[in-house]
Amino acid sequence: MRIIILGGDGYLGWPTAMHFAAKGHEVAVADNFAKRRWEAELGIQPLIPIPPLLERIRLFKEKSGHEVRPFIGDIEDYEFVSRIFGEIQPEAIIHFGEQPSAPYSMVDIQHAAYTQRNNVVGTLNVLFAMRKHTPDAHLVKLGTMGEYGTPNIDIEEGYIEIEHKGRKDILPFPKQAGSFYHLSKVHDSHNILFATKIWDLRATDLNQGVVYGIETDQTKLDDGLITSFHYDGVFGTALNRFCVQAIVGVPLTLYGKGGQRRGFLNIVDTMQCVELAVLNPADQGEFRVFNQFTEVFSVTELAELVCEVGSKMGYNADIDHIDNPRVEKEDHYYNPTHTKLLDLGLSPHNLSDVMVDSMLHIIDRYKDRVDRETIMPKITWR
Amino acid sequence: MRIIILGGDGYLGWPTAMHFAAKGHEVAVADNFAKRRWEAELGIQPLIPIPPLLERIRLFKEKSGHEVRPFIGDIEDYEFVSRIFGEIQPEAIIHFGEQPSAPYSMVDIQHAAYTQRNNVVGTLNVLFAMRKHTPDAHLVKLGTMGEYGTPNIDIEEGYIEIEHKGRKDILPFPKQAGSFYHLSKVHDSHNILFATKIWDLRATDLNQGVVYGIETDQTKLDDGLITSFHYDGVFGTALNRFCVQAIVGVPLTLYGKGGQRRGFLNIVDTMQCVELAVLNPADQGEFRVFNQFTEVFSVTELAELVCEVGSKMGYNADIDHIDNPRVEKEDHYYNPTHTKLLDLGLSPHNLSDVMVDSMLHIIDRYKDRVDRETIMPKITWR
Repeated sequence: MRIIILGGDGYLGWPTAMHFAAKGHEVAVADNFAKRRWEAELGIQPLIPIPPLLERIRLFKEKSGHEVRPFIGDIEDYEFVSRIFGEIQPEAIIHFGEQPSAPYSMVDIQHAAYTQRNNVVGTLNVLFAMRKHTPDAHLVKLGTMGEYGTPNIDIEEGYIEIEHKGRKDILPFPKQAGSFYHLSKVHDSHNILFATKIWDLRATDLNQGVVYGIETDQTKLDDGLITSFHYDGVFGTALNRFCVQAIVGVPLTLYGKGGQRRGFLNIVDTMQCVELAVLNPADQGEFRVFNQFTEVFSVTELAELVCEVGSKMGYNADIDHIDNPRVEKEDHYYNPTHTKLLDLGLSPHNLSDVMVDSMLHIIDRYKDRVDRETIMPKITWR
Repeated sequence: MRIIILGGDGYLGWPTAMHFAAKGHEVAVADNFAKRRWEAELGIQPLIPIPPLLERIRLFKEKSGHEVRPFIGDIEDYEFVSRIFGEIQPEAIIHFGEQPSAPYSMVDIQHAAYTQRNNVVGTLNVLFAMRKHTPDAHLVKLGTMGEYGTPNIDIEEGYIEIEHKGRKDILPFPKQAGSFYHLSKVHDSHNILFATKIWDLRATDLNQGVVYGIETDQTKLDDGLITSFHYDGVFGTALNRFCVQAIVGVPLTLYGKGGQRRGFLNIVDTMQCVELAVLNPADQGEFRVFNQFTEVFSVTELAELVCEVGSKMGYNADIDHIDNPRVEKEDHYYNPTHTKLLDLGLSPHNLSDVMVDSMLHIIDRYKDRVDRETIMPKITWR
């Protein structure tokens, strides 16, 4: 299948590119290296050094025999998107090409406006380029479970049947996102739903939980194929950050009470879910939503697990409750449905002592690179 | 009260500015004259010639004794918004400053992206400027009934109590907007809800129906104070356009079956509703939504009313069902709640033969200015 991966230089985009290439698909990636610019702006680095994209592509060819074709440009530029869609004629578009950090979007008005403009206009460009060049192609768009917020009812997959005053309809699930970043994904979802309806396009929104993990089958081929792993207060997600904190011997930081419950999944399950979506496309005119995570944990449960596994390795970590930089419920109901990907055959890699142990061992090799100054949150919602 | 009106040169912004000034408030307006630029781009003009804003302000002072203070600039520019909020210290911000046409947003990718960027970033700038300079001020934001689409259940005012699998919550009413313009308002609503929550701001979203009418108490003071009235396929709304079609003797164009039902209101009731919202502000941290219309009609009912009143004046107009340029249900359930403004004291000016007769007489005076070429829709959703 001809597949283009937008944001192919990122934490998930790069392993996804290798994953599909390894399965024999014709893979192209597009990236504008915005993430590398944000890193420079914030003075942060991924834990493990990442070679430039073109070098990673060359190395992956050498180690695996598989090709990945690079396109360097900005999807906020419609002419770029239109040109590559016309040239590649993708059958599937996997869209990771967005600013993915909630704290980054909350720095100030410039970062909030940049995040929404970049994400919303980039996705509009993709939709218009699909309409023009590849109206039969399937858009697989990375959303987030954070679009739903934490309502006091079960979260369904994209839609909910509402009975109201004696009448019924199936409507988009109400959204209560918790940052300007999460809101940008809500805006995308509404735009994509509309575009599928008026232009008969196919789209799947993967409302993903928090991803943890470092390795996939392909990153293991060579140290130079590792993905961009962040532990800092801006791009580092909960479990990844906790593991680094345990290794460098600083307390694991919980925001507020720590009762925040979220869906989580292993990076190898992201690959699996995206592949299931691509191989089982939405119908023409269909905007399908999958809740993409395998397990729900509270952040306290994750911190305790990391402490427990860490202590067996001789790392004695504490847990510290710090003032919550975000505005969010710290103790709430959370029971999101997530059966659609399981129905397609998802076989979850659940979180275990072994998984945490493996992450800790990898991080241990790079612990001298950890910049402790960047771990604590400096950006507040208020 | 110190009030700033964003988009103060527009169809609703200008009469709103005069309305509040006439009531003794300290009124400032901001505008970047984008509407005048879109008119030039599309080769269209309002029915009645409109003097430049500064001349209108001078004339209004001369006729009424009231001042309106102009600020010329673009609210997509944060520095502009921040500067004027700092200088004026508004107690209420009435936000009409957006690209308001669904067809304009559907021209192509450039117009879709422009509309969403302009509207979303402009509103973000307003929220951040409120946070910085006037956290106690009240934002009165013009939304649209089109945010809801046409669900098969009653539409509530902004929120709906959902009972699901034995649990309950009050959640934002699901949105199914029907153009990239309407979607931009959905995005704004989500952003404003979030900003009120995290920064404890006050906001009222006026989800307005389709406005008709030409005159208000202040526009009647002088021909030079009239507001920008459009009848063309891009900025002309249903009833206004039907009246012009009847006068110039072309068929009244219904899109498709003509069973589309919408909420409508007289321009003088827009003034009244905005004033009720301003005088009864939302609480700190509250995002309040009012459905702002007085009556529901199908477009066929309106066309028939215009034909009937027109024929009494000697204008014999036909109705023509043309291919629908939009993608929308042409026959559907529609029963939106709209009690909150009535509870605050709204006294509706319902649509009547007399109202249509009065509009037809005004249009008749300017019928030589009508450009028939611009009436038919040229922009299609597909």
